[in-house]
Amino acid sequence: MIKVTVWNEFRHEHIHEEVREVYPDGLHRAIADGLEAEDGLSVRTATLPEPEHGLTQEVLDGTDVLIWWGHMAHHEVDDEIVERVHRRVMDGMGLIVLHSGHFSKIFKKLMGTSCDLKWREAGEKERVWVVDPAHPIAADLPEYFEIKPEEMYGEHFDIPAPDELVFVSWFEGGEVFRSGCTYKRGQGRIFYFRPGHETYPTYYHPLVRRVIANGVRWAAPSGAAKPVRGNHKPLESLG
Amino acid sequence: MIKVTVWNEFRHEHIHEEVREVYPDGLHRAIADGLEAEDGLSVRTATLPEPEHGLTQEVLDGTDVLIWWGHMAHHEVDDEIVERVHRRVMDGMGLIVLHSGHFSKIFKKLMGTSCDLKWREAGEKERVWVVDPAHPIAADLPEYFEIKPEEMYGEHFDIPAPDELVFVSWFEGGEVFRSGCTYKRGQGRIFYFRPGHETYPTYYHPLVRRVIANGVRWAAPSGAAKPVRGNHKPLESLG
Amino acid sequence: MIKVTVWNEFRHEHIHEEVREVYPDGLHRAIADGLEAEDGLSVRTATLPEPEHGLTQEVLDGTDVLIWWGHMAHHEVDDEIVERVHRRVMDGMGLIVLHSGHFSKIFKKLMGTSCDLKWREAGEKERVWVVDPAHPIAADLPEYFEIKPEEMYGEHFDIPAPDELVFVSWFEGGEVFRSGCTYKRGQGRIFYFRPGHETYPTYYHPLVRRVIANGVRWAAPSGAAKPVRGNHKPLESLG
Amino acid sequence: MIKVTVWNEFRHEHIHEEVREVYPDGLHRAIADGLEAEDGLSVRTATLPEPEHGLTQEVLDGTDVLIWWGHMAHHEVDDEIVERVHRRVMDGMGLIVLHSGHFSKIFKKLMGTSCDLKWREAGEKERVWVVDPAHPIAADLPEYFEIKPEEMYGEHFDIPAPDELVFVSWFEGGEVFRSGCTYKRGQGRIFYFRPGHETYPTYYHPLVRRVIANGVRWAAPSGAAKPVRGNHKPLESLG
Repeated sequence: MIKVTVWNEFRHEHIHEEVREVYPDGLHRAIADGLEAEDGLSVRTATLPEPEHGLTQEVLDGTDVLIWWGHMAHHEVDDEIVERVHRRVMDGMGLIVLHSGHFSKIFKKLMGTSCDLKWREAGEKERVWVVDPAHPIAADLPEYFEIKPEEMYGEHFDIPAPDELVFVSWFEGGEVFRSGCTYKRGQGRIFYFRPGHETYPTYYHPLVRRVIANGVRWAAPSGAAKPVRGNHKPLESLG
Repeated sequence: MIKVTVWNEFRHEHIHEEVREVYPDGLHRAIADGLEAEDGLSVRTATLPEPEHGLTQEVLDGTDVLIWWGHMAHHEVDDEIVERVHRRVMDGMGLIVLHSGHFSKIFKKLMGTSCDLKWREAGEKERVWVVDPAHPIAADLPEYFEIKPEEMYGEHFDIPAPDELVFVSWFEGGEVFRSGCTYKRGQGRIFYFRPGHETYPTYYHPLVRRVIANGVRWAAPSGAAKPVRGNHKPLESLG
Repeated sequence: MIKVTVWNEFRHEHIHEEVREVYPDGLHRAIADGLEAEDGLSVRTATLPEPEHGLTQEVLDGTDVLIWWGHMAHHEVDDEIVERVHRRVMDGMGLIVLHSGHFSKIFKKLMGTSCDLKWREAGEKERVWVVDPAHPIAADLPEYFEIKPEEMYGEHFDIPAPDELVFVSWFEGGEVFRSGCTYKRGQGRIFYFRPGHETYPTYYHPLVRRVIANGVRWAAPSGAAKPVRGNHKPLESLG
Repeated sequence: MIKVTVWNEFRHEHIHEEVREVYPDGLHRAIADGLEAEDGLSVRTATLPEPEHGLTQEVLDGTDVLIWWGHMAHHEVDDEIVERVHRRVMDGMGLIVLHSGHFSKIFKKLMGTSCDLKWREAGEKERVWVVDPAHPIAADLPEYFEIKPEEMYGEHFDIPAPDELVFVSWFEGGEVFRSGCTYKRGQGRIFYFRPGHETYPTYYHPLVRRVIANGVRWAAPSGAAKPVRGNHKPLESLG
């Protein structure tokens, strides 16, 4: 059983009617609903307004994979909570960062770059192409799928070259984007997945849900021993 | 259930008494025994002397992960069988290449390089270090393990930079070696694992067996759609 | 001074009037002309109809970077010459493979995969995006450039994940393609660059010429020592 | 002409007699001396005690490649200066981080991981092996070189998998270490190189100096256009 926590800043839903219409119970509920339909996953949610943003040490210790959606309130996420999430990733917790989470404190801290990009909100078509059909995150997907309407994100996306590039998106307006990127940091596995603008029903799309569920399975902890660091006695006699 | 076929050229065992003493039923049997102790794997073996080297189209079609051990008879492997294995890797079959299999036709074909290296048979100590503790192939391993006696393989190992470097070996005689390397080719996942000289009981070592079983699970087919290639009609109207 | 040899199968130009109109002296001459305008490069050409396809051992030994354009006559390239080129790449010669060279014997041998892809000849627009603006192959380029008309190549392109992904192309008809890919194999550096259909004037495009010249400088031999392989005495005394 | 700034915290030299004996003018002077013997480099130094640590905006704007040595005073480096260096890396300045610089604020910020490792100060032998002989940082090096005495650094080194792994070290006491690692972040190129304990004369070693000079040439800015980010109008008409 993989324990998943879906985190959402849950702000747009309170102040923007058009977001509430699409996601009446919050983006996190739509994402969690998709995961609850899967076998072998145990799903909970957490949001910014909760104490400690719902991410107490106990919750994180009981989380195998954390999913992160944020946008307008990145700066309100407490630095201490960011450190706590970072330590858990170093210790093996998986992390899936969605869409505008590219600018979250935790993603920028893990990437070490600006994570900036081009964007345009014009309800256009995105076509997500699988460029790594050997990857488990591509399981049960066709070779491409379309999302319309979606926001455009365009290159250059200022991230480290991903360890694995799973998806590249084509946009109607003429741009491309590295839409599915995996990273390992410490013992943690990280998956960035682009789609998911808050005013569009992206998280009800069955293939978007398929990708997120595949990502959760891929990002679950590896089970390797925690490395020992610091001063170390020789294993062989020194000459 | 992951279907595994363990392939061995099965030649040393017939002509070298000291190999037969260590592996009386063949190296493949020792490797297969290790895998049969695992849950969720269905294991068969195949060897060079069998018709079509035991690798008929039917056997390969029923194989999720193929394990390859060869050394002195690489050149006797039929080119047509090599092509058949290659096509199956392109279509998603996993492949685990062990030790002297670095010089097999199939590994050289998949790598595109000479796959040459330094070597020395002196019964020395190898210490295998985990350098990617986020990788599932490192599951349930300590941060290093030792094998003695082992043959030395040393850098420069003429392979493409691995997609993921899981292990680096330290050798008593002063060399290092990239001992655990993963690759994706076509839809297939490939794992090269260094240890396993034929006169040493390496394949009875519990942690070597752990690595091979982890490798099998990692290399199982991803389940993504088979890409369509060739002439392609436009998905959008051309201006 | 970097010594460059531009190789072309030089077949379309003899039998297809529309190719001869665009490249009256052959594709190789247009590519070579672009390079001859650069400082620090010494350029020669070689073609399939010449003895040994113009790629004698002496020519290859005097070549730092080989550029390869082929399409309809891949199968006529002698296997021995392919081996010779391959050995030189292993020993450090750079190789730039253009467009339909994706299906050349030498590229397929170096990649180890089918190198197949989607394609369409419809004179559409290609927009080449820089996705690695830290790469010297992107020097003096804008963040994207357009080529129209061009042939479409689409994913999934069956290559190993590139060591570095420099360009991704957007196509009018709805596809994307990893258009600029680098690899190291042996001591050689390889750059695959997509554009260049034989009936279009792509190799006169100043930015396409910029990319090829940048590629030549990047692919020039590194100057590291040739590794010694085979049996190796211990550097430390064995216990 | 590549403009290099060698930065040193310059603290051990003031308080530890044994460091001052080895590096009477500071570690930075020994490193700078090595570089000044090279063609095409213009070298200056900067140290922690200087105003703004010697790294004013003007100095950084005039620096193509910054070299960083720090150890006991990482925490005294002003966060604002770290941000300034980070922005310059994003904009294309090269960065070479030496030895104990693995724990500097700038390296940890760029990596996104703890950058922790094993260590031992026992004056033992390090043998640095070239594992990427196609890399320009390996130019003019033999296939391995030895440094004795050196401090041991051992795996697991908590860094992102390097874009390119150039060196792996063997240590007398039984450990291995990824000693030469390259990264691209933003438009900047980063090279981490392990050797250089402050009480040992490592920076007078001719091959260590060769590596650092090669690293400088490799890390120099690529010359690609600065990407434009933010809101972006469509390049094609939207349907």
